[in-house]
Amino acid sequence: MPIPYVDTIARVNYSEIDQMGVVYHARYAVWLDVARTEYLRQAGMSYRELEATGLFLVVGDLTMRYHRPARYDDVVNVRCWVRELASRRVTFAYRLTHAERGTLLVTAETRMLSLNHQFEPTRLPAGVAALLHVTPDPA
Amino acid sequence: MPIPYVDTIARVNYSEIDQMGVVYHARYAVWLDVARTEYLRQAGMSYRELEATGLFLVVGDLTMRYHRPARYDDVVNVRCWVRELASRRVTFAYRLTHAERGTLLVTAETRMLSLNHQFEPTRLPAGVAALLHVTPDPA
Amino acid sequence: MPIPYVDTIARVNYSEIDQMGVVYHARYAVWLDVARTEYLRQAGMSYRELEATGLFLVVGDLTMRYHRPARYDDVVNVRCWVRELASRRVTFAYRLTHAERGTLLVTAETRMLSLNHQFEPTRLPAGVAALLHVTPDPA
Amino acid sequence: MPIPYVDTIARVNYSEIDQMGVVYHARYAVWLDVARTEYLRQAGMSYRELEATGLFLVVGDLTMRYHRPARYDDVVNVRCWVRELASRRVTFAYRLTHAERGTLLVTAETRMLSLNHQFEPTRLPAGVAALLHVTPDPA
Repeated sequence: MPIPYVDTIARVNYSEIDQMGVVYHARYAVWLDVARTEYLRQAGMSYRELEATGLFLVVGDLTMRYHRPARYDDVVNVRCWVRELASRRVTFAYRLTHAERGTLLVTAETRMLSLNHQFEPTRLPAGVAALLHVTPDPA
Repeated sequence: MPIPYVDTIARVNYSEIDQMGVVYHARYAVWLDVARTEYLRQAGMSYRELEATGLFLVVGDLTMRYHRPARYDDVVNVRCWVRELASRRVTFAYRLTHAERGTLLVTAETRMLSLNHQFEPTRLPAGVAALLHVTPDPA
Repeated sequence: MPIPYVDTIARVNYSEIDQMGVVYHARYAVWLDVARTEYLRQAGMSYRELEATGLFLVVGDLTMRYHRPARYDDVVNVRCWVRELASRRVTFAYRLTHAERGTLLVTAETRMLSLNHQFEPTRLPAGVAALLHVTPDPA
Repeated sequence: MPIPYVDTIARVNYSEIDQMGVVYHARYAVWLDVARTEYLRQAGMSYRELEATGLFLVVGDLTMRYHRPARYDDVVNVRCWVRELASRRVTFAYRLTHAERGTLLVTAETRMLSLNHQFEPTRLPAGVAALLHVTPDPA
């Protein structure tokens, strides 16, 4: 059954905050990585397995919009889904909210390129593409 | 005299590369931060001084496009300039190239919001805005 | 009832591995931080609350011994306990193992100094010291 | 001519500081890595070349003692030298000082193990060992 989206949870640790007392903006990109990794796992293939087949899914474009800051020890929900799918790329979208208060923190998108281990563009294998279900933006 | 752009140099260290042997995509965001900090310094005001006046310049939007990967021990040139300026925000643009070969690695943009220390939008002080010269995209 | 030790779990993400395909050695220090934060929480006081009382627990000494490497997507168990307690400092010890195979990965120790918000040494409040139970090294 | 020690410079950037306004303790480990890489380069062999010969120099033990904190935009001098040399390992020592004020910030040591690309202990090649000169601790 197709997955509409996957939620992962991140608790802000001390290494992630800066002297404004908020999460340093670049750190969110790591949570996006963890989120799409969990999406793939729940869809049926771990990224470790996928990479072992000779494929890389590499970030070609990253956009992040920062709505409100997360603070130390906050629990953040990272919702991740597939926004677009093409023969050689897939776009994941993300919506980060404060897990307790529900307030919107960050919206983001990563366009992933399918590359072989010589870093050349290559078609997504049918078995991988079949796991990736394009979904309208969830609430 | 207005600054058209500022170049900074980063040498890729071991902590910045992943198991593909290339710089992990989120690390470039730190180099952008260093680059705009140097821009401000060369323009006449360190960000440390700016923050001490009660202002934050916070990343509101980040976009990065990855053209080619940088590898361990590569020297990367980060060119930084001001693309847009408004009363409460400033947009920096970036062009990262391999310092020896000149190949394009990454293009990026950060829209910075002017906030006071209560995280409320506030006008850029005239003395700060005067240091920021909008420049057409350099080569 | 005193806590003998606390176990936390970390799954290795892509940002944490280097081009040898193993976790970059400095990253483990973040997991130690998360581990002692959870220790405090389970003992009855979050570090966020503790910091709000005017205290910092700052790392004065860090030692890590690397026995075997962790790899991408491995799940690591971080066991954390209190090894020593004095009026102005507390020493946490750590034992990291591969969660599935049980093999020893890293042993570590951090000596934490009790400082006030002017970074001056200060006695651990009785209420905090009472939560910290010195425990013989667990298996 | 043997090198007694190598000095490298790091300027603290925003990503490296935490909400206490000081460098997060784990970040110093990256500067140590950069410092010993520069030591090797100045001694006559880049680590990139060394790794290409089939060798890894892997951190087996890390110790850091934190004397005083570095703050945002501070310039830090990292002095690095060889403290011990054996057939299969080399110990680098480090002394970090505030570049302007000269105050001591951090002392550290990393014991590096010589491994082949199957992660098995292996003798340091004579050509590498010849570059590493044990030096008494400098001032």
